Amino acid sequence: MEDRSALVTFLLRLADDHLILGHRLSEWCGHAPMLEEDLAMPNIALDLIGQARALYQYAGGVEGKGRSEDDLAYLRRERDYLNCLMVERPNGDFAHTMLRQFYFAAFMHPFWEKAMESQDAMLAGIAGKAVKEVAYHIRHCGEWVIRLGDGTEESTARMQAALTALAPYVDELFESDAVTAAMAEAGIAPSPASLRAPFEATVQSVFAEAFLDAPAAPWAKTGGRQGLHSEAMGFLLAELQYMQRSYPGANW
Amino acid sequence: MEDRSALVTFLLRLADDHLILGHRLSEWCGHAPMLEEDLAMPNIALDLIGQARALYQYAGGVEGKGRSEDDLAYLRRERDYLNCLMVERPNGDFAHTMLRQFYFAAFMHPFWEKAMESQDAMLAGIAGKAVKEVAYHIRHCGEWVIRLGDGTEESTARMQAALTALAPYVDELFESDAVTAAMAEAGIAPSPASLRAPFEATVQSVFAEAFLDAPAAPWAKTGGRQGLHSEAMGFLLAELQYMQRSYPGANW
Repeated sequence: MEDRSALVTFLLRLADDHLILGHRLSEWCGHAPMLEEDLAMPNIALDLIGQARALYQYAGGVEGKGRSEDDLAYLRRERDYLNCLMVERPNGDFAHTMLRQFYFAAFMHPFWEKAMESQDAMLAGIAGKAVKEVAYHIRHCGEWVIRLGDGTEESTARMQAALTALAPYVDELFESDAVTAAMAEAGIAPSPASLRAPFEATVQSVFAEAFLDAPAAPWAKTGGRQGLHSEAMGFLLAELQYMQRSYPGANW
Repeated sequence: MEDRSALVTFLLRLADDHLILGHRLSEWCGHAPMLEEDLAMPNIALDLIGQARALYQYAGGVEGKGRSEDDLAYLRRERDYLNCLMVERPNGDFAHTMLRQFYFAAFMHPFWEKAMESQDAMLAGIAGKAVKEVAYHIRHCGEWVIRLGDGTEESTARMQAALTALAPYVDELFESDAVTAAMAEAGIAPSPASLRAPFEATVQSVFAEAFLDAPAAPWAKTGGRQGLHSEAMGFLLAELQYMQRSYPGANW
């Protein structure tokens, strides 16, 4: 039972990362700076929300308390969400949004690659689909990081500001605790620490092309994995949950 | 019964104006440009929310369906809110917020003055308290309109931009329909048209001191009194209703 509860926590963390980032990205829908991006960003958001759905369904099944994907996505309270803090950051400008997405994809790609060989067949199945989607996210967002980082004076300044703003949120991605240790030991998911090298390789190669300096984070933010969120989270949940809260049990 | 339902609609329109504007103003709490305003704006917001409470309590009683002030304030759906569109406008900058507040106070002051002699004793009672509060709102916000309108190049430009932005929302305050006609006929509340002259007198005297030109509105927005709101309203309600929706029936 101990392991089951660790697995549920692990799956919820992963699902919440995807749901919250997908929601943030969906806020751009209809507001993107160009038509192509107005298609690309909601498409990436749909990938993320699709991954979240699969993970919530699985988490609900493992938990065995009859909670549906909608219950888990929409009807928990702020302290019950276990996403990392980076994904709940307000969008800021386009450069900030693209860099956040690039960081997340650069982290998730090696995760899914290794998770394809998971002892957990369900997770391995989700990974097989997700890994292809995330490879595209890296390419798409990485290209924007390069184009803006090595662009005009204005675009370079904005990308550099995004780097500074997001730097404190990178380390939390690699945090380890009893849950991640249990997953790694059981061969269910790679340890976060093992993802640092491929993450840095992806990031460094894009930053080099963009002539960007990866800033050293003066300090790191943490707390998300324990449900301790930033001020932005409550406002995000108010929007995210509004339909289910106002029309409980609503269906298409 | 016809009159009773007109009275309920009338009271809800009035209460919703005060609740929504009070909520908007409360968004400034902790973010005002100076400490004095960080006290003044939430104080005005509290006045408005207090007036809304009294009106909701009365509306719920007249309606006779057992709806409490919380039910009416927090648990209706967007199309059920009958506030005018001006009060749901996003705050914008400080000049925009102050001008919106000034317009609303300049409209409400003659309303409450006349409502003190209402045939409806309850409304007359609410008016007696509100009229003093709103007189202060006019003074406070009017001073800011003058100070910013006749201030620096930057502050004048911002106040002029606020005038342009809010111009289309002024006329809706004075709209008449069967409900307002029934209230006027019964001696319950002044007709909106009768408030235009005192409103203009207040506005013109402040604009003259501020060396501001009242812009002619190119067109007027309408729909709020029938529950047809702007995009901003859904986001506002998501925040406003979050606590009651998430913790139904919560009490202090």
